[in-house]
Amino acid sequence: MSNKDSLVAAEKPRGFIDRLGDAASAEERIVSAIGRVYEKWGFERLETPALEYTDALGKFLPDQDRPNEGVFSFLDDERWLSLRYDLTAPLARFAAEERQNLPKPFRRWQTGSVWRNEKPGPGRYRQFTQCDADTVGSDNPAADAEMIAMAGEALEAVGVPRTAYRFKINSRRVLNGVLESIGLAGESAERARLIVMRAIDKLDRVGVEGVAALLGAGRKDESGDFTKGAQLDAKAVERVIAFVTLPTESRGDVLEGLESLVSASEEGRAGLQELRKIDSVLSALGVGDAQTRIDPSVVRGLEYYTGAVFEAELTMTIVEDGRPVRFGSVGGGGRYDDLIARFTGERVPATGFSIGVSRLVAAQARLGLGEQFASPAPVIVLALEAERMGEYFAMASELRAAGLRAEPYLGAGGMKAQLKYADKRGAPIAVIQGGDERARGTVTLKDLRLGAKLAADLGEDRQAYARAREQVQREVPRAEFVAAVQQMLARQAAFAQHS
Amino acid sequence: MSNKDSLVAAEKPRGFIDRLGDAASAEERIVSAIGRVYEKWGFERLETPALEYTDALGKFLPDQDRPNEGVFSFLDDERWLSLRYDLTAPLARFAAEERQNLPKPFRRWQTGSVWRNEKPGPGRYRQFTQCDADTVGSDNPAADAEMIAMAGEALEAVGVPRTAYRFKINSRRVLNGVLESIGLAGESAERARLIVMRAIDKLDRVGVEGVAALLGAGRKDESGDFTKGAQLDAKAVERVIAFVTLPTESRGDVLEGLESLVSASEEGRAGLQELRKIDSVLSALGVGDAQTRIDPSVVRGLEYYTGAVFEAELTMTIVEDGRPVRFGSVGGGGRYDDLIARFTGERVPATGFSIGVSRLVAAQARLGLGEQFASPAPVIVLALEAERMGEYFAMASELRAAGLRAEPYLGAGGMKAQLKYADKRGAPIAVIQGGDERARGTVTLKDLRLGAKLAADLGEDRQAYARAREQVQREVPRAEFVAAVQQMLARQAAFAQHS
Repeated sequence: MSNKDSLVAAEKPRGFIDRLGDAASAEERIVSAIGRVYEKWGFERLETPALEYTDALGKFLPDQDRPNEGVFSFLDDERWLSLRYDLTAPLARFAAEERQNLPKPFRRWQTGSVWRNEKPGPGRYRQFTQCDADTVGSDNPAADAEMIAMAGEALEAVGVPRTAYRFKINSRRVLNGVLESIGLAGESAERARLIVMRAIDKLDRVGVEGVAALLGAGRKDESGDFTKGAQLDAKAVERVIAFVTLPTESRGDVLEGLESLVSASEEGRAGLQELRKIDSVLSALGVGDAQTRIDPSVVRGLEYYTGAVFEAELTMTIVEDGRPVRFGSVGGGGRYDDLIARFTGERVPATGFSIGVSRLVAAQARLGLGEQFASPAPVIVLALEAERMGEYFAMASELRAAGLRAEPYLGAGGMKAQLKYADKRGAPIAVIQGGDERARGTVTLKDLRLGAKLAADLGEDRQAYARAREQVQREVPRAEFVAAVQQMLARQAAFAQHS
Repeated sequence: MSNKDSLVAAEKPRGFIDRLGDAASAEERIVSAIGRVYEKWGFERLETPALEYTDALGKFLPDQDRPNEGVFSFLDDERWLSLRYDLTAPLARFAAEERQNLPKPFRRWQTGSVWRNEKPGPGRYRQFTQCDADTVGSDNPAADAEMIAMAGEALEAVGVPRTAYRFKINSRRVLNGVLESIGLAGESAERARLIVMRAIDKLDRVGVEGVAALLGAGRKDESGDFTKGAQLDAKAVERVIAFVTLPTESRGDVLEGLESLVSASEEGRAGLQELRKIDSVLSALGVGDAQTRIDPSVVRGLEYYTGAVFEAELTMTIVEDGRPVRFGSVGGGGRYDDLIARFTGERVPATGFSIGVSRLVAAQARLGLGEQFASPAPVIVLALEAERMGEYFAMASELRAAGLRAEPYLGAGGMKAQLKYADKRGAPIAVIQGGDERARGTVTLKDLRLGAKLAADLGEDRQAYARAREQVQREVPRAEFVAAVQQMLARQAAFAQHS
């Protein structure tokens, strides 16, 4: 055998995780449910390789606050390959490469791992799962509305009630219109526009006063640090604040409120017209104001999107750091018209939505949906006599034929080790046939859930435990053991519901 | 827009593929069906990262004929990372890293992409999907039997009839016993044993005569090339040939036949005893001789496996290069007891089975199962009046509510472009509401399948085509159009079945 000195360290790379059991299947269940919805809406599943030529991926990370986010890259036959960092860049490559063969417009959905070569942190991994839908080749705002309505149906398909999520929509063009109307137009004002957008993006954290300060001279935060402002005059500040604080309860009211704010700008009027069309299709699809609002304070990825932007948040409240907060974002997207032009030289309009799968897994757990979808722990058939493995397998097989999850013990341990194994597996029931039972043509069923409860309740009172034993174990004829297992599981389920 | 000179080439890396629509979902469907079976047998789903530390992966590629098969590797913070080349090496790392927390034995199943940095060739890709089940920490031959029976159930779950697949089992230890009995024992004979195993592995291609030649002096193939043989004497050749040509129809007969061939060797007797136990559990699980044979000619991965080896093949005949051949292997596995010791220094017995997912996708297509699982093409709602997108979306929504796949057209084209789009999507029906229909409160349904057939049948006969038009198009009240679409689809299905 190996020399101890030459042993290899058993460790996964930093920033990566293993997932076992329900933790592993939760993502897959969520993605399947979303995929079924997307298929129904006419989207075709696409799979692209994990690796792309590095120059084909480009640098289009949506979050421009961290423009130097790395990718995993290596040289292959004198060309650089990179692991994809999202599913949009590979879509752009695919849509360009296959443009002669694809229907126009082209709708696709895709799921898979993406990799980010960044410093790992708590809850921040270097490999995670995305689930995207995109429509390529349509500049119709109806395509944006479709994204939103479909993503809402997807959230409901994974168990999020309609009352527990909300979409917020904005238009980058409307925002540009407002900025134009306060004199921030053209390339020379690009930096100023960026500062204004960053200020708006902080509304949730710093409030209206804070944003106003950041739009004007600047703002001193609680720690005393001063952030220089956008240096807008009072009238311009007022206009931007009026824009981002429009009451959002009714899409119709927001559209009306925007009218006067953007009427002076062609870009703004075009953006408003797009929002009107999105609103109209959403209404036709029965998507109401409560689920989906137009919210001018939504910014999202500063330079990535070119038109409508949208994000989905769960509105339920959770406790974080001791105070109640909203669960927050589970996905976002918008219109990006520049990605495919890198390959073809022609602007191709596109819009998409990306769901954060691991956020949804967390949400399912918070909503108590995790358990309802989880695989039950298996019934364990003990293996007490080595030469009778065939019989134990036959028993497990009969349980499976009745729809149950079941397995025989395969290790080398005795009764005690086998019950410990069953415990570690979380098994509800152990099926036991030793020599005595075999002679009598019976099987003993041990209710491990009740057993654990009694052991906890009765503690050191061994006599009471001995009396309770008959509730925990039940000897039944071999020919009837499957039905008896089902009864015991039903009793456990009823008991769990009442306690 | 981009300058033409600065355009990026839209191409996927060499040796990788994109998959769209059914091609993309076929693998996922197969893996889900297999996973449901494995879960039921008590196996827990595991997900490990795509990347591992290179030294943790080691070099355990099963196919030792190409020991220098590469992996994709790169330096990260002064440590080398590699993309996994199979799912077994990461399992070994995981089982070692988590050994304090896992139940013993530990059963897991896993699916995911693996990467091989090899020269791409026809049908040979650098990223593909595996689906594995492994039991770690049991040396019980019942664990091998479980793999085989469970993998058989998995094949049936993806639609392969019991009569269309066959498992072949052998034991590396029985083979070693035979080799011992002809004097090829100990380390000094390792090279000779390898040559003998390579000869046996060629039985399918060169036949019994060919193997006998390769075991003896050597063999000249059709092209005149001479392969030097193992230089066994005539008696030894006879013994090996007797071993690999034992009639395999009955497991019991093979076991009996092996008795005399291995009785002189302790290793051989131990291997035979393991095969007996595997046979006994298979019989208890109702796995008969027709599905699962003991076949001494099976070799598999020369140095990887340490005990039982098994492979699954589909027995249906396909035509390849003009002559009928068996479809062949769709998976394989066996017992490997050395992988985890690299980390822990202690030998941990393990056994596993890996299904070749892309082979099964191909098999489903050959068996005509692909279509039955495929997503139907969507019904397309044409969008003829730009300001009425909401109504088109509402119609698509009503079709989806009735369980159909449906989408409105989102491009900018007119009627002709829209019908071309529907054609490209393979749509069965186009739903049309122009100004005339709207005024009448109706919808026109166009049967695109029948339309295509009539166009093909009637060719240039425009008059006949005009007469047939009324079969192809049907105007129905708006309120009844969903039912009418369903009727038209039913007519298409009936028609497809009778033609």
